Amino acid sequence: MTGITLDQARSVLAAQPFNDAVGARLVAFGDGSARLELDVEGRHLQQQGLVHGGVLAYLADNVLTFAAGSVLGSRVVTSGLTIHYLHGARGGTLRASASVTHHTARQAVCSVTIEAVDPDGDVHSSAIATGTVVSTAR
Amino acid sequence: MTGITLDQARSVLAAQPFNDAVGARLVAFGDGSARLELDVEGRHLQQQGLVHGGVLAYLADNVLTFAAGSVLGSRVVTSGLTIHYLHGARGGTLRASASVTHHTARQAVCSVTIEAVDPDGDVHSSAIATGTVVSTAR
Amino acid sequence: MTGITLDQARSVLAAQPFNDAVGARLVAFGDGSARLELDVEGRHLQQQGLVHGGVLAYLADNVLTFAAGSVLGSRVVTSGLTIHYLHGARGGTLRASASVTHHTARQAVCSVTIEAVDPDGDVHSSAIATGTVVSTAR
Amino acid sequence: MTGITLDQARSVLAAQPFNDAVGARLVAFGDGSARLELDVEGRHLQQQGLVHGGVLAYLADNVLTFAAGSVLGSRVVTSGLTIHYLHGARGGTLRASASVTHHTARQAVCSVTIEAVDPDGDVHSSAIATGTVVSTAR
Repeated sequence: MTGITLDQARSVLAAQPFNDAVGARLVAFGDGSARLELDVEGRHLQQQGLVHGGVLAYLADNVLTFAAGSVLGSRVVTSGLTIHYLHGARGGTLRASASVTHHTARQAVCSVTIEAVDPDGDVHSSAIATGTVVSTAR
Repeated sequence: MTGITLDQARSVLAAQPFNDAVGARLVAFGDGSARLELDVEGRHLQQQGLVHGGVLAYLADNVLTFAAGSVLGSRVVTSGLTIHYLHGARGGTLRASASVTHHTARQAVCSVTIEAVDPDGDVHSSAIATGTVVSTAR
Repeated sequence: MTGITLDQARSVLAAQPFNDAVGARLVAFGDGSARLELDVEGRHLQQQGLVHGGVLAYLADNVLTFAAGSVLGSRVVTSGLTIHYLHGARGGTLRASASVTHHTARQAVCSVTIEAVDPDGDVHSSAIATGTVVSTAR
Repeated sequence: MTGITLDQARSVLAAQPFNDAVGARLVAFGDGSARLELDVEGRHLQQQGLVHGGVLAYLADNVLTFAAGSVLGSRVVTSGLTIHYLHGARGGTLRASASVTHHTARQAVCSVTIEAVDPDGDVHSSAIATGTVVSTAR
């Protein structure tokens, strides 16, 4: 483990200008897992009123990097990811949870689930994703 | 082919609120291909000054949906995508190009390349992606 | 659900000539999940004595199709899959388990884990995968 | 480049027991690309008489590893791959071609196309794939 705290990880997220455009918050971090949450607003939608796939892909990309960083350290870069879109979301809160499935000192494979929590508490699966993160530390 | 024009496709992009947060423009559309361009600004970066992976994933998601829409029609939804991040970009213009590799009446598989064109004209591969789009028309 | 029994699903596997070359057996089927097992033999290896990635990809492809078939019916075709290779296996038994994460009447998204169970009972993660299966029934 | 010759690469393929079960041959290798060919026989099929997806996944896995090996050297391991199945094949010759899209000293991202060449010369796209290969050399 890396000793990076939730507060330190939140500082990393706060230093990502693109997250200002999206507005996710880091609500859990450590021990090979991480969670981002996002309250859906009008700016997150596509032309049919659904959350844009790009928002889900952003959440998947970012949350898996944080999960991997909790075991590989802060000098990491995501190699890539695969996302499957499931049930379209129109509002509520998106909850993107990642965990490290397997890792070496240099690389981590992570799984992600994104759920949409409706204002009335119903939960739907919005997407699943997997991705690989590599350490750039020597 | 669907008869959707570039102007009509641009109207679809304009109706995506999330694209306002990103700022891509559709520069080509039709015959199974599409291209989005994005001038990199500070808001597109992550904490190390590189274009955020989520921006690249957004471009891949959106451009492959447009390419598929040019053969499947406007009632389409993207099932998912895989993106590989290549050379990190810090500025210039991103050029995301998609083409349909194979399609039936109901589904299209698309390939995407995202290149970064530096202000001095140098071109680097930023990402490659593949994805699947399905028609929701009856 | 489809009413397909484990025995009927085993008949489908038995009707796949390529499975004769690999030798997997279907040990569970139904309710959106399936499991294939394979006893590793010399013929399954690559040049370094590890189980060939193609064997793992075969298991992932096949088990996710069975899991999807348990909810979509027997007329299905796999659209594609993503596999991440984890800990290399040299022997023992491979256990490929798939479950449907989300499905409509026409399409299912499945998750797969492949574990290697050593002769001494140790279990390692060999691969994770995700994939999409579509119904071809009218 | 690595100086590995086509004959040396063929020796690697010949040292893969699992390829004996499949029967692919390496017909091109070098400069970031590789090609495997396979004459389709009854043993390669699934229950509907189509080439088994696992055969296509095997070809994709193996050919991208060879393409990457031509730039990274012989000590490589494939991290994972994504494959999209396109037009089902029933016979003829499968031609799996891979090329390195981008690489560093330690890692390569490759693209694969698999075409089916019918006995009468017609060519269909059977699959496209992308994958990542990492060097295990120090």
